[in-house]
Formats: sequence, C-alpha cells, structure tokens
Amino acid sequence: MKLNILGCYAATPRSLNNPTAQVLEIKNHLFLIDCGEGTQVQLRKNKVRFSRINHIFISHLHGDHFFGLPGLVSTFRLLGRKTPLHVYGPKGIKEALTLLLKLGDSWTNYPLLFHELTSSDSELIFEDDTVSVSTIPLQHRVYTNGFLFKEKPGLRQLNVAAAEKYRIDRCYYQNIKNGKDIRLDDNKLVPNAELTFDPPKPKSYAFCSDTAYTTSIVPLIKDVDVLYHEATFLETEKDLAPKTKHATAKEAASIAKAANVGKLILGHFSTRYKSIELFKEEAETIFSNVALADDGKEFDL
Amino acid sequence: MKLNILGCYAATPRSLNNPTAQVLEIKNHLFLIDCGEGTQVQLRKNKVRFSRINHIFISHLHGDHFFGLPGLVSTFRLLGRKTPLHVYGPKGIKEALTLLLKLGDSWTNYPLLFHELTSSDSELIFEDDTVSVSTIPLQHRVYTNGFLFKEKPGLRQLNVAAAEKYRIDRCYYQNIKNGKDIRLDDNKLVPNAELTFDPPKPKSYAFCSDTAYTTSIVPLIKDVDVLYHEATFLETEKDLAPKTKHATAKEAASIAKAANVGKLILGHFSTRYKSIELFKEEAETIFSNVALADDGKEFDL
Repeated sequence: MKLNILGCYAATPRSLNNPTAQVLEIKNHLFLIDCGEGTQVQLRKNKVRFSRINHIFISHLHGDHFFGLPGLVSTFRLLGRKTPLHVYGPKGIKEALTLLLKLGDSWTNYPLLFHELTSSDSELIFEDDTVSVSTIPLQHRVYTNGFLFKEKPGLRQLNVAAAEKYRIDRCYYQNIKNGKDIRLDDNKLVPNAELTFDPPKPKSYAFCSDTAYTTSIVPLIKDVDVLYHEATFLETEKDLAPKTKHATAKEAASIAKAANVGKLILGHFSTRYKSIELFKEEAETIFSNVALADDGKEFDL
Repeated sequence: MKLNILGCYAATPRSLNNPTAQVLEIKNHLFLIDCGEGTQVQLRKNKVRFSRINHIFISHLHGDHFFGLPGLVSTFRLLGRKTPLHVYGPKGIKEALTLLLKLGDSWTNYPLLFHELTSSDSELIFEDDTVSVSTIPLQHRVYTNGFLFKEKPGLRQLNVAAAEKYRIDRCYYQNIKNGKDIRLDDNKLVPNAELTFDPPKPKSYAFCSDTAYTTSIVPLIKDVDVLYHEATFLETEKDLAPKTKHATAKEAASIAKAANVGKLILGHFSTRYKSIELFKEEAETIFSNVALADDGKEFDL
C-alpha cells in the first residue's frame, strides 16, 4: 500500500502549495482521492500514469477538493481514454460535471459513471475481490465524506517445504492456498495449517478531510493502519476550528489515539503557517506515531 | 500597456506548461483574459495583486480557457474581497459558476456580475474614459470571442514654455489640456496647437484565441499595435488545423500581415512540440515582427 500526496494545503493558493489530492495504490488499484485545482499537473509531476486511474473519490464539493476534476475528466478524453471512469462524490457532482462538459461541447468518449452519495451513515461504495471502500461521514460546512479503504485478506501462503515433505502433488497447491486440508494416498488428513503460513495482515487506510473534531468517526476507523486526518490549525488558532468546521493538530491526534490507529498523517494545513513542523510537535503531545503530509511526498505503508 | 502571459499552451497538461491566461495592464486597468486551470497560482507566481483584477474576459468555455475561474472567484471570497467583479463570457458561464458556488455553499460576499455574450457580430462590451473593449467573433468548435482593447486618446500635453511665453495664468492650464484656445488680455487668440503637443498615440491590443484561420477578423483588428493570435500547429500538422478549428503559425502571420498590425505574438502552442522556436521561424516567412508567448513572459508594449 502506497500513498502519494499530490497536494495537502487548504484553500487559498500559494505559489508552491497544492490543494487536496492524493493517490492511493492498494492491491492492484490506483485510487485518486479528492481532486483540487491543478491535480492533473501534479499527477504529471509525480509521474502517475493517467490510464491507471479508474476510480476517483471526492470528499466534498468545495473548490480545493474538487475544481481539478473537470479538467482531469476533459484531459482523459483528449488522451483518447476508452475505459470507464467511476466518480464517487456528493449529490450534485454529476450535474456540475455534465454542465461543464456540455458548455464546452466536449462530452467524454469513454463511459463516465457517477456514484452520487447522500447518506449520513457509513456505506459500502466499492468492493471487489481485493479491496473494499466505505464512506466515513464527516462534519463540515457542506455534506462531506471521508473514505475507508480496506484490503481483503489474501490467500494463505503455501509452505512449500511442508508440502514436499508430504509429497503432495503440485496440482493441489491452489487448493492448499484456498485453505483446503489435504488427504494423502494413505488416507491420512493433513490439516491446512500444517501446509500454509498466514497471509499478510490486510492493510487499511482512512482518509478524513475536511472535518471538525468529531468522535463519531472513531468506531468507523478503529484500528486502521494509517489515518490521514485534516489539521488545518495549530493551537494558536484553535478558536477558528469549530467556526470553520476544521480540526487542529491536537484534535486529529486525539482521534488517532481514541481509534488506536497505527500511524497518523496530518494534512490540509492552512497556508497562513510558514512552517508545518509545529503541527507534528503539537500532535505528538497526544499521539506518538505522527507524520506530516507534504506535496509530492510518498508514504510506503 | 503591458502584457503578462500567465499561460499559453493548449489543452493537455505538462508539468511546466500552463493553459491560456494573460493579464493586460492598460491605462489604469488590469484585465484578466481567459482563466485556464491553475491561473490563480500563476497570478501568485507572477506577483499580480488579486485586488487589482476587476474585469475578467473569457473567450470560450473549453476547460483550458475557463476551468481556473471557479477557483479564482472562490479565492477572492476567501481573501475578503468587497469590490465588484465583472465577468464577460459566453452564455452559460453564469449558470456554471452559480451551480459550482451553490454546491460548495460558498456564494461570494462581493458582487459578481456576469455579462453574457451571444452575438456573432462584434460588440462594445466595456467602455470608460480611458479604454474600450470590443468582441472579435472567432471561428472555433464552440462559440468563441477574441477581444480588442483600445486606449482612448489622452489629453493634449501642455507646452509649458509656450504658455509661459504668453504669460498665461496657470488656472487656464486644464482648459488648454482639454483642447481650448486661449484669448489673451490684449484680445489676441492663441490657438491650442501653439500651446500643446499631441497626446501619445493610443495603443491597441487584440487577443484572438482559439480560432481557425479566418479573414473575417481582419477588418476588426486593422492596424492594431499588437495582435496575439493562436498558433496551435506547425506546417507539419497543418492538416489538423481546420479539423480542430485551430490555426498554424503561418496562418496567424497571414492574418497579421493582412491586418497590418505592428507586432504579432504567437501562443496556444500544442504541447506535442518539444521546442516552440519553429513557430517563430515559420511565421517570419510571412510577417517580420513576430514574438513568441511563453508562460511568465512579460511584454512591455
């Protein structure tokens, strides 16, 4: 599981900071999470292959999380894309994209499939053999969801030495990986546990931005390996957090601690701060494993 | 008159190229012309003060000329703008912006005034004491206008030495600048021409992008000081020009020659070309005073 931060700064632009967008590589998928203005250029700069993106998850319809989507969708068309693109986001996202493409007389020549979200409860929105994605309802000024990405348990791993010891034919190996016990020619049953190792522990990633401090998300993100939680403000501006429905570094750390997550990544920093190091310092007074997002940074999780 | 090119490349993104946007400083105005994705960051990089922009002219509703506008309009709000913003562009631009701001529940707290264009004839769309702006109907895949910016003649310039020779009181100086003759105490009439110099020649700038080659624009841009004309393609791809309703460098130069303009600036280069030098070479076979636009380049006209 790899996370590539394309942008992690709050709304007002600066020369070198980008609004929210990140690419999560999980199993065989490359998921784009949020798409602030300039995301397509950030994808180029970070050498992400456009054709690998088939699913885009949009947390909410504020510009710094969303205004890069019309351009990216248009660029896919110019690049001759044929494969379907799935867009998950708040109700209204389809109307907005459709209108912009209509006005430019440039409807996509690939299937563009919208999955509009309206529920205030967590719901499963994507699932295949390897991964599931659920919403994490957040508290912000407009309807907003975080997203929980979970690997499914992989196949058990073959203990080749054990299988060879019992002289088991290779044609049974797939059955063993699938968890089956094996009956030998002498009718003895070898339990699967003797022939396999546990699969790697499935990993999970929770993206929570933008949101006010809310403990309602704790049960949903309990024990995730990695939590990305917004931290727009430091303690000096903590009064602004509830007013703007954003969180502080300490609040993000409290959520991480309550949910017993493995690692906390902070992002969505207000551009008022010259340096972001203080975010880490303040969060570490509450939770120990804290990392800072930054534009172009890659986390190998 | 100064022209700051924020971006001048065609649609598909590259790491270091920006889509169309430029800032024209003319008399006391700072006009933003087109607003491709990323324009607000380009404004920051080029140190343009956001508060000086009160008029934005959008040629057409393709993303590479327009998708930076929602973000810029939103940023103005976040920066606490109070002064009105005038947006001139094709019909539909109001519906698009309104929908995007409504979905983000972030309507501007400053007056946002749309001037929607529908005419296929040139029309005067802005005028004050110093400057006028008219549309230049272009031929593209969607409804598109170029824009003609014209300074108005300034006041005549006082010849102080001549005024002093005739011992004319200073209280008449403004009348002299306004073009009045002056009657002396001995009843002698001094004609205005003896007391003044001609004002500086009013300058003019024509922005023509995107467009196929069309001589219909020649009468509208006759004798302008500076013409910015799109040149998406070189001769090697000239077959693509009529199909995509774009122009080649040579076609842009033909228009410049027929219109007898002072200087031709080429832009809107396809990102397929590694170098843009050939655009200048090809245009110069037809018209001599050719310059190439480039992101961040400033022309002092």
